[in-house]
Amino acid sequence: MIAAAAGRLFAELGYDRTSMRAVAAAAAVDPALVAHYFGSKQRLFVSVVKLPVDPELIVAQVVLGERGGAGERLARTVLGVLEDPAGLARITGMVRAAASEPEAAALLRKLITRDLYGPIARALGGDQPDLRANLVGSQIVGLVLARHVVQIEPLASVEPDAVARALAPVLQHYLTGDLASGTITL
Amino acid sequence: MIAAAAGRLFAELGYDRTSMRAVAAAAAVDPALVAHYFGSKQRLFVSVVKLPVDPELIVAQVVLGERGGAGERLARTVLGVLEDPAGLARITGMVRAAASEPEAAALLRKLITRDLYGPIARALGGDQPDLRANLVGSQIVGLVLARHVVQIEPLASVEPDAVARALAPVLQHYLTGDLASGTITL
Repeated sequence: MIAAAAGRLFAELGYDRTSMRAVAAAAAVDPALVAHYFGSKQRLFVSVVKLPVDPELIVAQVVLGERGGAGERLARTVLGVLEDPAGLARITGMVRAAASEPEAAALLRKLITRDLYGPIARALGGDQPDLRANLVGSQIVGLVLARHVVQIEPLASVEPDAVARALAPVLQHYLTGDLASGTITL
Repeated sequence: MIAAAAGRLFAELGYDRTSMRAVAAAAAVDPALVAHYFGSKQRLFVSVVKLPVDPELIVAQVVLGERGGAGERLARTVLGVLEDPAGLARITGMVRAAASEPEAAALLRKLITRDLYGPIARALGGDQPDLRANLVGSQIVGLVLARHVVQIEPLASVEPDAVARALAPVLQHYLTGDLASGTITL
């Protein structure tokens, strides 16, 4: 209950404006209980904000299949996770917190390079897999921020399928293209 | 002096953790003076955080020249602004604040769609110019967040020129490509 309430508040208010007291109120428990179980707000955040999906499953889904389709599979997987309200809440919470909180930024760095996009880039066999993972992460974090946090229009209202089609070749370029040529080579 | 101090603190600490009192201390003035001139923290933020460059100049720089080179010109212009410490501080401040503050998010929306990338997309004559502007904005905001706020490696340390080359075809795709095809068409 505490974890669910904390996850919701972090997503809605961002890290800075979520207080331990507000989490306790939303979970209808005594603030002392939140402090007892989670210690600090940083520890509460890191325990609560986990990926809504198993990273290994996502990596397998994207890597299996034709190499030239990896960008599209990744785009569709990400858009699918963001369609699920629970997934969306956790991911927006993570991105918002990473913008202001060093501990959340460290979590996001680990997720992008070690758990998610790094393994995908490595499995696809391009050079500079960590840089590729970072570039993929920059576009996906930027999408979450623009579409779901800043809610810029029309991007915020466009069908997920249309967003996936616009992003697919970009992610493919970052994963397997020639990054140095200045042109697209998929 | 107050504006310069506020700009620096918003960039370093983010919106939420910058107080009117800290701005006054950094500017070596009485807090009452800050309140007198700027009213609320929101008003201080909106007066202080302006683009470090003239949007019309950027639009002209990107739009003039071969249409197929617009993505590269935009990438180089953005990376150039981010190389300048004053430009970097204002832009990171803006992106961090937009992640937690509705008024800053509104500012970013206006900047992306009305002042900067919207006019570029319209001048280049593609369909759905506002959606194109949003997609360009999502990648640039994501780059600022990943490279300069979250400071993910190796992206944070890569030469600006290499980043510009990796991004150029992506921005070109968003500006002039076929967004619905799922493949790159520049």
